[in-house]
Amino acid sequence: MDRWFTEQHSKTIRFSIQISKILYQTQTPFQKLEVFENEELGRFFALDDYLMITEKDEFIYHDMIVHVPMATHPSVKKVLVIGAGDGGTVRELCRYATIEHIDMVEIDEEVVKACRTYFPKSTISLDDPRVHLYFMDGLKFVAEHKDDYDLIIVDSTDPFSVGEGLFTDAFYKDCYEALKSDGILVNQHESPFYEHYRKNMQRAHQRIVKHFPIVKVYQVFIPTYASGHWLFGFASKVYDPIDGVDFNRWEALNLKTGYYNPAVHVAAFALPNYVADALKETHEHDPV
Amino acid sequence: MDRWFTEQHSKTIRFSIQISKILYQTQTPFQKLEVFENEELGRFFALDDYLMITEKDEFIYHDMIVHVPMATHPSVKKVLVIGAGDGGTVRELCRYATIEHIDMVEIDEEVVKACRTYFPKSTISLDDPRVHLYFMDGLKFVAEHKDDYDLIIVDSTDPFSVGEGLFTDAFYKDCYEALKSDGILVNQHESPFYEHYRKNMQRAHQRIVKHFPIVKVYQVFIPTYASGHWLFGFASKVYDPIDGVDFNRWEALNLKTGYYNPAVHVAAFALPNYVADALKETHEHDPV
Repeated sequence: MDRWFTEQHSKTIRFSIQISKILYQTQTPFQKLEVFENEELGRFFALDDYLMITEKDEFIYHDMIVHVPMATHPSVKKVLVIGAGDGGTVRELCRYATIEHIDMVEIDEEVVKACRTYFPKSTISLDDPRVHLYFMDGLKFVAEHKDDYDLIIVDSTDPFSVGEGLFTDAFYKDCYEALKSDGILVNQHESPFYEHYRKNMQRAHQRIVKHFPIVKVYQVFIPTYASGHWLFGFASKVYDPIDGVDFNRWEALNLKTGYYNPAVHVAAFALPNYVADALKETHEHDPV
Repeated sequence: MDRWFTEQHSKTIRFSIQISKILYQTQTPFQKLEVFENEELGRFFALDDYLMITEKDEFIYHDMIVHVPMATHPSVKKVLVIGAGDGGTVRELCRYATIEHIDMVEIDEEVVKACRTYFPKSTISLDDPRVHLYFMDGLKFVAEHKDDYDLIIVDSTDPFSVGEGLFTDAFYKDCYEALKSDGILVNQHESPFYEHYRKNMQRAHQRIVKHFPIVKVYQVFIPTYASGHWLFGFASKVYDPIDGVDFNRWEALNLKTGYYNPAVHVAAFALPNYVADALKETHEHDPV
């Protein structure tokens, strides 16, 4: 039987993955959740028809959302992770012995349950004693914390789905306040190529620059995401993601990584002109 | 009517573009040639069901196959371009006043004819007096030239189609000999993610390192190519693509580019670990 999972990358562009096995399908209180298997990509899951992770390339996303801020900040002890139900972000964070406490806030408990069952490799650190799980709205959680975290990672779905609130002006302001005086915020920042994603990228950037003194965008090759050209936002109170970073300290940790290395870290911030221009445009307009 | 162009990115992965208009379809002596239009990508053409260029993102490919070697080599006067029937590579080369002579060798004249009709923006420089067009096999052409070119650009289709010969050991050897004593070869180098492309990437690299003292691979975000993570090969007799490059000279030319800039040039060579490992693997095996 010829079954395909198809994601609409853009209005007239489709990406399709042949399904070798349907592992799980349910409607959670928040979204449609499906777990499939593909011959080449391994297991993968989708929320409301948007691909979240595949076993084959999830290391790319998780390497880059975690190791870039962790190499930049000289002393991360307390981290807040919002979203990230597949566990991959927490797995990478738990490799750092210096981290003492991780709060992970995922709105949809069903995502974590399904991932524990079907993605044991990515959820492997969710029971680490340093990890505290909260199943609630990340917006509410962050608003209740002040001057508390060294690092906040927003590993969310897109702003046109459950993740919508995590792209608002009020949320970025609350993140700023929940961070310590030298804190860093990293967030899933959409993509520059297809119109719909580009607008989301611009809107997120336009809002973040209002609240943080240092705001950069960095890019990652994620083969199974729309256009393969994905972005993360880096917003910081003190630390620049390149100038002054002590990469020797990171190298001394001897972490084995599939994608990240210090040269890739620096290179990720070198944006093609058309991407830099699209971000610059947002500074020239009134805030949305 | 709902019509789609579908490319098989991998055995079980498909990429589909909705067709708003069919502009041209023919079978040339070499391959199937189709020109379509899409609402978001503009016009695009395919050879044997593989997407070649779209109006929306062709600037990315052509920026990176041309400006990287042109910024590296201090004095390019004579260039050989193999393939490149859409004209985009020659268009970018013709922006350099210092280039005196360009030989472009495309095996399939029908590709150039169709592109002149449907892609006026990319073929705009094919009638530049410095450009000399040859419709013949690039392998034969290059074998007849010794110590002649400053730069050879192989802008070919994939090795599993008409471009096959342009990925052979004998061809790379002939390129080496056709280059002057400080010449540079840049070639379309496939992609690291999907198995089939990865093997082609490894095979090309394994062959090129046998003939050139300086061999690097650099990467580009090309949204409409398989995985979006595309590679070019940089093989050189003398010039390193980063160390010693005088980027001020390139900046002084004041060329407006949509993707390329010196920071992107340097960053493109920072390979993720899994890509570097796949290339390194090829050094550890007997040549294919």
